[in-house]
Amino acid sequence: MDKHYSKLCESLAVAIKRSGLANGGTISFHHHFREGDRVLLAVVGELARLGFRDLTLASSSLAEAHSELANYIEQGVIAKIYSSGMRGALADRISHGLMAEPVQIHSHGGRAALMETGEIHPDVAFIGVPSCDRLGNANGVSGQTRCGSLGYALVDVDYAGCVVLLTEELAPYPNHPASIRQDRVNLIVQMASVGDPSRIGVGATRVTKNPRDLLIARRAAQVLTGSGLFNEGFSVQTGSGAAAIATTRYLREQMSATQTKAAWALGGITGEMVDLYDAGLVGRLVDTQSFDLRAIDDLKTNPNHHEISAAEYANPLGLGAYVDELDMVVLSALEIDLDFNVNVLTGSDGVMRGASGGHCDTARGAKLAIVTAPLLRSRTPTVVEKVTTVITPGSDIAALVTDAGIAVNPNRPELHERLHALGLPLSPIADLLQRSIDIAGRPRSPEFGDKVVAVVRYRDGSVIDEVHEVLK
Amino acid sequence: MDKHYSKLCESLAVAIKRSGLANGGTISFHHHFREGDRVLLAVVGELARLGFRDLTLASSSLAEAHSELANYIEQGVIAKIYSSGMRGALADRISHGLMAEPVQIHSHGGRAALMETGEIHPDVAFIGVPSCDRLGNANGVSGQTRCGSLGYALVDVDYAGCVVLLTEELAPYPNHPASIRQDRVNLIVQMASVGDPSRIGVGATRVTKNPRDLLIARRAAQVLTGSGLFNEGFSVQTGSGAAAIATTRYLREQMSATQTKAAWALGGITGEMVDLYDAGLVGRLVDTQSFDLRAIDDLKTNPNHHEISAAEYANPLGLGAYVDELDMVVLSALEIDLDFNVNVLTGSDGVMRGASGGHCDTARGAKLAIVTAPLLRSRTPTVVEKVTTVITPGSDIAALVTDAGIAVNPNRPELHERLHALGLPLSPIADLLQRSIDIAGRPRSPEFGDKVVAVVRYRDGSVIDEVHEVLK
Repeated sequence: MDKHYSKLCESLAVAIKRSGLANGGTISFHHHFREGDRVLLAVVGELARLGFRDLTLASSSLAEAHSELANYIEQGVIAKIYSSGMRGALADRISHGLMAEPVQIHSHGGRAALMETGEIHPDVAFIGVPSCDRLGNANGVSGQTRCGSLGYALVDVDYAGCVVLLTEELAPYPNHPASIRQDRVNLIVQMASVGDPSRIGVGATRVTKNPRDLLIARRAAQVLTGSGLFNEGFSVQTGSGAAAIATTRYLREQMSATQTKAAWALGGITGEMVDLYDAGLVGRLVDTQSFDLRAIDDLKTNPNHHEISAAEYANPLGLGAYVDELDMVVLSALEIDLDFNVNVLTGSDGVMRGASGGHCDTARGAKLAIVTAPLLRSRTPTVVEKVTTVITPGSDIAALVTDAGIAVNPNRPELHERLHALGLPLSPIADLLQRSIDIAGRPRSPEFGDKVVAVVRYRDGSVIDEVHEVLK
Repeated sequence: MDKHYSKLCESLAVAIKRSGLANGGTISFHHHFREGDRVLLAVVGELARLGFRDLTLASSSLAEAHSELANYIEQGVIAKIYSSGMRGALADRISHGLMAEPVQIHSHGGRAALMETGEIHPDVAFIGVPSCDRLGNANGVSGQTRCGSLGYALVDVDYAGCVVLLTEELAPYPNHPASIRQDRVNLIVQMASVGDPSRIGVGATRVTKNPRDLLIARRAAQVLTGSGLFNEGFSVQTGSGAAAIATTRYLREQMSATQTKAAWALGGITGEMVDLYDAGLVGRLVDTQSFDLRAIDDLKTNPNHHEISAAEYANPLGLGAYVDELDMVVLSALEIDLDFNVNVLTGSDGVMRGASGGHCDTARGAKLAIVTAPLLRSRTPTVVEKVTTVITPGSDIAALVTDAGIAVNPNRPELHERLHALGLPLSPIADLLQRSIDIAGRPRSPEFGDKVVAVVRYRDGSVIDEVHEVLK
């Protein structure tokens, strides 16, 4: 690079122009700012103003905050989407047939794999960061709008033709730690705001006092500790959300009582996991996404809290993924069926309202993957005959833990035996389905049209399911 | 990767077999263990036993410890060499015509550029590390034979077809910090010893009491502080060797006296630089190569001591190099000529005895590059009419500092003016040459043959000079 070349662009429009992006190109984003993200819509809005058309949008995920994308799809600015999932008004519109091209839904590891095979090739990666220096050394832990780990973005940095950083703060050179290195960054634009810090952790770290949720969480912890894998030096991922947080707390009690320490915890790291570390109960935190401010601040200061890329986390085509080394993982479900197939994408109304995330990655990799869910949410059943959408194949799920009992996958007889010996309340999954029908009746299936609105890609890139248009 | 795939190989022979290396292929190495390295000869010896032929050896540099390579060249195992430099018996043999193909001499930044253009494509990178885990998460700061920064190897990791780690210790999973990440490592072999820790720092950190060297160092520090660039927040690289260490000490006195702090120091980091940090006189240490145990230990524990790759350090074709941001650098010379061209590769006898290193990279990048050298070493002159070999073009050298006076490059009149105003002893470089001739006479030129034994590549890959066979 000519030493007098400047990466700093005076505006987003200038950066877009210098990036060389053309109609029909692919733009990528990360979702570390979650519901607080202000980068994606700012960029797509500018692209619309500049008259761009037919772009492929490859975001590691999409949130309710991105509802306005529907307008840009209608205008023809965005023609195709890759994402781990979607929620809110955008998801509703797309589920009802907004797009001509189906959305491609991938897992976190699957996204890295799609980049590796070249199916996703970001012409320009637009990466929001709280701070970087004039050459692009950037991290997610310094500055005002901190998002912690930049794990998803690190994959884009490796594969994108052009990397544009959108930064809130310009730090003195050199800015360290440099999660993103200067020699991978083409252009930099300073923005007044890349995100709303108060909305980064929305929904991720709820603490529940709901007795049903606490019951499920306690049972989940009992399954983990009774599985035969709860041994000194084990590894675990519990994820985010109220049930996961509660499970982590019960697990902590057992770890503390038996002085059984985990070598490492993977995630999706939450403040609860940091508490485990601070209590000396886990040796290392391995972090592809920081779920709350406590996790973010810990990543900055704790030398045993490590940022990893989504490829390191879960790429099934790579040379080694953390998920494959996991002993146990706690997962959620919108639906789970008699074959233990899990749906975390579509609601029982057929509308998308979730994300594939690391679900099928960790389920495949971990020695023990359990799903926790209430038997009914209001009158919506979790256990169904056949899931609306398969995200994770049932063969990878060892057990379902509900408030009405625990169903062990028949392909895990040794787990059944262990949990039975512990006196835990076990039921065949068909019995849980029947219980649910007895209480709430059989749910009405939504009416689907022929049009495919989303294609679900398994982590290796293969098509595992399709989502059809919801007719009403 | 199949989760049951094991990267661990029971022997070097197995790793070589699994690597897919074929005759005529390219193998790469780093030189962070310097004179203590035991990896390169172990691998090449095994390749010889396995009958490999016509290999290209791309090592970031070669040391006296690698003399035995001459045998493998004679046997036809190694047909071509890329290196920053060479010393000792191997260099002597090659300078006298041992190889059919000329050695390609590159700078540290130039090596990254040759990888980026694809001229060097390591089929297999053999990377010695003190410790890694079973998936290859590795660093240079944990374990017995620590080498500190793995900066050179980080480039190989990005470009090699197959990455083989040779490790002394297998650390528990996951090993962090992970300078080399698991998803970039194909194979792992445990070795009894990857290096001799007592020889890593050999020659790099001598402390001099020689009054002539101290005079040069004091003057060098005066040039730096009087250059107009010695301002709060400046940046500096002083490198290793007795003169550099002494210069760093004098510079420190001035920084301390005037309370002028450097924002960052680049290197080639030595314990002296760590002292500067500890004294609060430098904000960050940016480290592509750790020269001594103090630097190595500091890299492990100091959050403001940062490991960078040789590409980040100096790649001229990349998106941003630290050398281009430098204010000042102190360099050495075996010879410097009337045009300020510098030779750090060949002795006055025409035999190779040095390395290009970061010389031309930093000289090009820094605002002020000065060369320190004694007027005479024994009776060998430093200032010559024309250097035996050009490594760094004179246009990038601002001044030569010797015990007999300071010569400012005529292309830097403003520097001349500043130093003159300070009363420093300035001489035209031609006067220094004359002084040297008056004392020691004109040196006899070596006799060279027609055969080209080495091609000197400038940092951008262009050929800047050739080294001819020494006839006697």
